[in-house]
Amino acid sequence: MRPRSGKKRPPQAKPAKRDDRAPAASAPRPPRDGHFLWGRHAVLAALANPQRRIAAIHASGDSADTLARCIADLPAARRDELPPISTTDRRRLDAIEGGTGEKAVHQGMAVAVWPLEPPALDDLLAVHANRPVRLICLDQLSDPRNVGAIMRSALALGAAAIITTHRNAPEESGALARAAAGALERLPLVRVVNLARAMEQLQDAGISVAGLAADGDSDVASLATEDRLAIVMGAEGSGLRHNTRRHCDRLVRIDIAPDSESLNVSIAAAIALYAARRPA
Amino acid sequence: MRPRSGKKRPPQAKPAKRDDRAPAASAPRPPRDGHFLWGRHAVLAALANPQRRIAAIHASGDSADTLARCIADLPAARRDELPPISTTDRRRLDAIEGGTGEKAVHQGMAVAVWPLEPPALDDLLAVHANRPVRLICLDQLSDPRNVGAIMRSALALGAAAIITTHRNAPEESGALARAAAGALERLPLVRVVNLARAMEQLQDAGISVAGLAADGDSDVASLATEDRLAIVMGAEGSGLRHNTRRHCDRLVRIDIAPDSESLNVSIAAAIALYAARRPA
Repeated sequence: MRPRSGKKRPPQAKPAKRDDRAPAASAPRPPRDGHFLWGRHAVLAALANPQRRIAAIHASGDSADTLARCIADLPAARRDELPPISTTDRRRLDAIEGGTGEKAVHQGMAVAVWPLEPPALDDLLAVHANRPVRLICLDQLSDPRNVGAIMRSALALGAAAIITTHRNAPEESGALARAAAGALERLPLVRVVNLARAMEQLQDAGISVAGLAADGDSDVASLATEDRLAIVMGAEGSGLRHNTRRHCDRLVRIDIAPDSESLNVSIAAAIALYAARRPA
Repeated sequence: MRPRSGKKRPPQAKPAKRDDRAPAASAPRPPRDGHFLWGRHAVLAALANPQRRIAAIHASGDSADTLARCIADLPAARRDELPPISTTDRRRLDAIEGGTGEKAVHQGMAVAVWPLEPPALDDLLAVHANRPVRLICLDQLSDPRNVGAIMRSALALGAAAIITTHRNAPEESGALARAAAGALERLPLVRVVNLARAMEQLQDAGISVAGLAADGDSDVASLATEDRLAIVMGAEGSGLRHNTRRHCDRLVRIDIAPDSESLNVSIAAAIALYAARRPA
């Protein structure tokens, strides 16, 4: 979401609530079963997403006006269901923990949210029946920043969704959302019980399933001829699991210099999507 | 560098020095004008690089043997100039600070080092005179993790060097090296006083200089026809500076979905290098 700078709209009707009398170093609390999102991109995208349930909106004194203006630009129905902005001391926002041991780079904004309801694979396939589609499947990627970075690239490079597992995959979190730079709110993140079974379901729907592997048989550029395609990414280091490899229609590779280590998994996913969208 | 698991070599001759009697939470000290590198890839690559001056080698009890075996595989001349391994409590390694507010993900290994001597642009151009070359120029990228990630991809995708500025660019650091996954030791990182003047120098050497910009005139795939090419990346958000744009031979773009935000700069650099290496 780009803030529209041209028009001036009236600030948000609800009065801003002050809560910076609380001790400076204690982070605000997330809701039960929820978490924080922070940083301009992630916060504005969450506010704009009608599917996103928001428990509280926090802004430091110098960011509250910007945020209020962005909220004023939202459709009335969405605006009415949002809680008021709490003006929260910057040091309290600093104390929000990202789940990766990293300090939250909040840019003066954070929202306490509940996770999005993951869409069902059946519904996703119904929406994209019988027409060109690009999907990304993630096989046990554990770093939320890699998953977030892949969501950001996938949205930009035209993928329709990410498919991952309920277990052995990062939960929705602030660190994931921050790396996704808004894409968490816009790109469906499907969670399945069993990835191999989901891959079979994709194949039944006429989608060609290609695994990315260092020892792949063909160059990733060969994917560009596919009309309906899912690209499967394994974890850095371990790669695709045996059973995941076995379920791929084929394995493709990105050729790299012989004296180099490997590509980061989020970089490899972006290159694969880029290569796959170009005509052969 | 991949540790060779096949052969068993005698462990390092020098006795391991114990220093875990020190208070558990205090990080070991880096040398004056130096810093720490940590994590398996970065540490092993630094040990293997004859240009890298190493002040101290720290390993936790469970990682010291692995590290000693890797050192035993190095050429004798290099092995002899390395300090002995200090066995250092994991909690002290945990206390190393990455410079990005992030905890060091050290995998039980850290080395205290002095920065590499940056090569001169003239020397780099002499080595790559009159033959195909790919270079990446960075215009005020400030996040060390983005710079490190670009080094990793650039090495893997066949670039010969990164060119950046002395000022307004991250110093060599543990966070940068960690994201570079070893590439900091293997890919020349040239530092120039003035990027625009360096771009002129590249042009004088017959290198076509293309800036990546959202409003670029042609698709990034058009770079594949260039024999000698430098790709210039601007900072996320602000993009290329006016004077940098003006010095480009042309501006190219990566087309992205209209409802998406943008690509991460390290992803964009990798896609540009990938697109540039494919035959048109």
